[in-house]
Amino acid sequence: MVPDYEVLFEQVTRAVGPVLGGGQVADYIPALARVDPARFGFAVADLATCTCGTGDWKVPFSIQSISKIFTLALVLAVDGDALWNRVGKEPSGAPFNSFAQLERERGIPRNPFVNAGALIVTDRLLTLTGDARTALREFLRAESGNPDVDFDARVAESEQRHGHRNSALAHLLADLGRLDNPVEAVLEHYFWQCSLTMNCRDLARAAGFLARHGLRADHSRLLTRSEAKRVNAVMLIGGTYDAAGEFAHRVGLPAKSGVGGGIVAIIPGRCTLCAWGPALDGHGNSLAAVTALDAFTTLTGWSIF
Amino acid sequence: MVPDYEVLFEQVTRAVGPVLGGGQVADYIPALARVDPARFGFAVADLATCTCGTGDWKVPFSIQSISKIFTLALVLAVDGDALWNRVGKEPSGAPFNSFAQLERERGIPRNPFVNAGALIVTDRLLTLTGDARTALREFLRAESGNPDVDFDARVAESEQRHGHRNSALAHLLADLGRLDNPVEAVLEHYFWQCSLTMNCRDLARAAGFLARHGLRADHSRLLTRSEAKRVNAVMLIGGTYDAAGEFAHRVGLPAKSGVGGGIVAIIPGRCTLCAWGPALDGHGNSLAAVTALDAFTTLTGWSIF
Amino acid sequence: MVPDYEVLFEQVTRAVGPVLGGGQVADYIPALARVDPARFGFAVADLATCTCGTGDWKVPFSIQSISKIFTLALVLAVDGDALWNRVGKEPSGAPFNSFAQLERERGIPRNPFVNAGALIVTDRLLTLTGDARTALREFLRAESGNPDVDFDARVAESEQRHGHRNSALAHLLADLGRLDNPVEAVLEHYFWQCSLTMNCRDLARAAGFLARHGLRADHSRLLTRSEAKRVNAVMLIGGTYDAAGEFAHRVGLPAKSGVGGGIVAIIPGRCTLCAWGPALDGHGNSLAAVTALDAFTTLTGWSIF
Amino acid sequence: MVPDYEVLFEQVTRAVGPVLGGGQVADYIPALARVDPARFGFAVADLATCTCGTGDWKVPFSIQSISKIFTLALVLAVDGDALWNRVGKEPSGAPFNSFAQLERERGIPRNPFVNAGALIVTDRLLTLTGDARTALREFLRAESGNPDVDFDARVAESEQRHGHRNSALAHLLADLGRLDNPVEAVLEHYFWQCSLTMNCRDLARAAGFLARHGLRADHSRLLTRSEAKRVNAVMLIGGTYDAAGEFAHRVGLPAKSGVGGGIVAIIPGRCTLCAWGPALDGHGNSLAAVTALDAFTTLTGWSIF
Repeated sequence: MVPDYEVLFEQVTRAVGPVLGGGQVADYIPALARVDPARFGFAVADLATCTCGTGDWKVPFSIQSISKIFTLALVLAVDGDALWNRVGKEPSGAPFNSFAQLERERGIPRNPFVNAGALIVTDRLLTLTGDARTALREFLRAESGNPDVDFDARVAESEQRHGHRNSALAHLLADLGRLDNPVEAVLEHYFWQCSLTMNCRDLARAAGFLARHGLRADHSRLLTRSEAKRVNAVMLIGGTYDAAGEFAHRVGLPAKSGVGGGIVAIIPGRCTLCAWGPALDGHGNSLAAVTALDAFTTLTGWSIF
Repeated sequence: MVPDYEVLFEQVTRAVGPVLGGGQVADYIPALARVDPARFGFAVADLATCTCGTGDWKVPFSIQSISKIFTLALVLAVDGDALWNRVGKEPSGAPFNSFAQLERERGIPRNPFVNAGALIVTDRLLTLTGDARTALREFLRAESGNPDVDFDARVAESEQRHGHRNSALAHLLADLGRLDNPVEAVLEHYFWQCSLTMNCRDLARAAGFLARHGLRADHSRLLTRSEAKRVNAVMLIGGTYDAAGEFAHRVGLPAKSGVGGGIVAIIPGRCTLCAWGPALDGHGNSLAAVTALDAFTTLTGWSIF
Repeated sequence: MVPDYEVLFEQVTRAVGPVLGGGQVADYIPALARVDPARFGFAVADLATCTCGTGDWKVPFSIQSISKIFTLALVLAVDGDALWNRVGKEPSGAPFNSFAQLERERGIPRNPFVNAGALIVTDRLLTLTGDARTALREFLRAESGNPDVDFDARVAESEQRHGHRNSALAHLLADLGRLDNPVEAVLEHYFWQCSLTMNCRDLARAAGFLARHGLRADHSRLLTRSEAKRVNAVMLIGGTYDAAGEFAHRVGLPAKSGVGGGIVAIIPGRCTLCAWGPALDGHGNSLAAVTALDAFTTLTGWSIF
Repeated sequence: MVPDYEVLFEQVTRAVGPVLGGGQVADYIPALARVDPARFGFAVADLATCTCGTGDWKVPFSIQSISKIFTLALVLAVDGDALWNRVGKEPSGAPFNSFAQLERERGIPRNPFVNAGALIVTDRLLTLTGDARTALREFLRAESGNPDVDFDARVAESEQRHGHRNSALAHLLADLGRLDNPVEAVLEHYFWQCSLTMNCRDLARAAGFLARHGLRADHSRLLTRSEAKRVNAVMLIGGTYDAAGEFAHRVGLPAKSGVGGGIVAIIPGRCTLCAWGPALDGHGNSLAAVTALDAFTTLTGWSIF
């Protein structure tokens, strides 16, 4: 049964109202700090990529870590299970632990969504494609149906200038023998991927292959049914930083968030959601987007649990 | 569409065959060490507790940590969300970390399924009922429809004698001011709960309330829809020790395992599964039970992802 | 050259004045909480146990962890280097780490002065003597020349009632197979040892064997020269909880502190010092005693560095 | 009483014989890997820099981390106690912990001898001098009396190429706001300092200010008596990587080792020692040098304890 989306969107928007003043916009780079914290967008894409939305759902924002699901999918499509020898699929544990864990576990990051894991995946995509950036952009343009999807050079450069933490992780991975490409090349591609600019509509569409059990927008197969299921499992366990349990508790869907304020969530076999609000909670997840997804799943009863 | 269970069970049993010789039966107490490692049982209970099964599905075994989902449900039914102030709902991180995490997080265990978290839940059930053991046994008899479900005194006593690790955790919790009852009382109830003896059929039935979104076997409400969803979310994230990611990856269902070799898994809105095989893999999960659940979900395509 | 102790004591006492109002008396058991925080005593014993002192140097106090140097010496005298297979001689690292380290290092405590290490030493002394308490008391009576040195039963019982943390450590050690005696027996002896009541004069004398390179008060040999040197090395590295570096920096002497407010310090080949003031700094070391030892070493220029 | 050095050296050399075949020469850069593992040198410099030695005591080697005591002294001479706000003076804890500790302690390294701490000191020396390298070289030439002391450009470049771990630490420090100079500049100076090439004779002389309570070779004051004592205290606690306790136990002297196989040790008020042997034990300390220092202190009875 398809719900009345207009009514639903109104209710979701009302639920989000009270939290719009709270949280903190990411301010470690100027390009993110400048975004208006009162923005809010929400979009739903069904399996046929028929998309509807509300609010600022067509306003582009920096997708940041949401890019990690797409690089992961592109590498998995080629490497299959072999990728899981380079990166784990377990929860990340505590955030203050990222270097500690990486050291103790000899450079096998906990999962592909912690930064170290994403660096490993980027390194692999770089090896497979020679040009990870272009491969990713073409994929997103095709899936979203929007040929204007692109990087934001200012964001990428800002990230690079302020990215000491990611540089530290990349050097540590190199020290442990886990990178095939030079540290500088991996970091550059990583920062560019994070700088991709998309809106809720495009993101909901672009992630559709995870709701379609691995089929791309043109119904060609990107991932096997089993691989698609596995990406969703990893998203549930590690897609929202160290708040995975809390998020699964409240929303009950596999999802991936970014510090640009976006969250993509999957209802396998049914649809894809994307919510956006720039202000973040203490875990780095968008306050408005979590609230919207919570309201939406409560109202529809759609949950995987 | 209901599958042909007879065919399914045959295929599942065939898939389990090759692993029956592997793994290690838990041997820290004599009562567990004596169990025949070649045993294998599998049961499915639909929402109406209509149950079918195969192999040793009516042979009782020690449910051990599977008891944790039932004590959790009984406490949640009374305390509701207040319980989550005493115990978290995040993944447990690494196994070598249990004391470290507990210390750092000031006695708020990561989730109700790590031993420290289960001690907290037991302490609370003890406060709420005055006799946690009897409350739990009566609940399980009612849900399973089997009035003979009972504790195994020898197992309970063995656990107590060899339970230095749990004693250490309980004393640490007491030191951090997290227990309302005396350490000895909490430990005693805890060890008794672990000693419960049930078979696949009874366990599949008893966990039915999690597939029925909170409704008990008699269709009275134990948990709200939202609370039931949350228990499933915590099971997915912390139900199979430190292999939660791997299990979600392979099986894709909320589940709880015990060192007695049993695993209960939930397909919300559809059915409950219980698999049993005494020999364990390196994470403490039954090798045969994981294999059986993997085969079953692959064959049916039933997964939450 | 022997300094004019009267002048020295006056200067040390003046230096201590300003800190006498600060710090916190240990209050986890009533017997310690009741002590007057304004007390201050200081004693020096030369190699011939000729002792002089100032202030409350003859007022008895609870020696607590200072007892650890004596149990260590008694076990070393019999076991020699074999003891170092059971307990390490490295610094303890961070305080929030005690359980973590013990787990990671499989029950070999960092050194004999962390609580876990002292439990190991007590367990060993219990095995060697059958009655660790009496052995320790007789040793202290003989070395101090005071036949009235004794335990304080009220303190011992209080410790036991509030000793969840030590109970947790002992059970963890038992779980890791590191104790030869029952947990309860080890804990009981441990708590009794901590309850020993002595004054600065007696303690300075009793530790004299460490300044005499292993010779007891009657000049019989307790430890080899090399063993005595090693105990001093471990004291420097682990004798003042997690402030060993800071203490070595300020005072520059091997020393052992207790939460009763006492600190014993050794100047090998010259003399033994004992300072006492009940109020503790944030690391659990006596504020007045550290200040006094700092002043004393600065004034005399006596330091091992 | 001055011992007969000729006899002593013979005994020390005999003691070292059996270990000369063991251990591993550091091989992470080619320049170190090429050194003959059978080399052994030993030198003693008295307070007047009158130096005698044996074996390969005039053969230059890469001083590596021994350089850390000299950069520390140069910074302390200007900054005094203010330096201890940037870097701690406590033991380093476990080696697998370096990143973990740095993160948890917000970029205040445990002590100036762990790599992160040395990077902080180098950053400071760079700010104070504008050219940390030249300042350090001139100091070492003056103290050793050898105007040929110099860097080895090949070693410095090799270090830089293989220094991912140090790069990771420096970026992490920068991320935590602990560096005043650009990461690249700090790293470059750091790698150059490590590449200094000196022999036992020069090193024993150059460290003489620590035996002379802060006075340089020309008897001008570099450090106050108290500061010199403190450097010795930090050396005892952190000078030999994670084997500080073991080393204090065996040798009982403040010392600093380097992966080039050298160890400098101080007997305050008496003399300075330098031992060299390229093959390292599991902690990264020279097997031959530790053995030589152990024999020397046992034979002479010279120890601070």
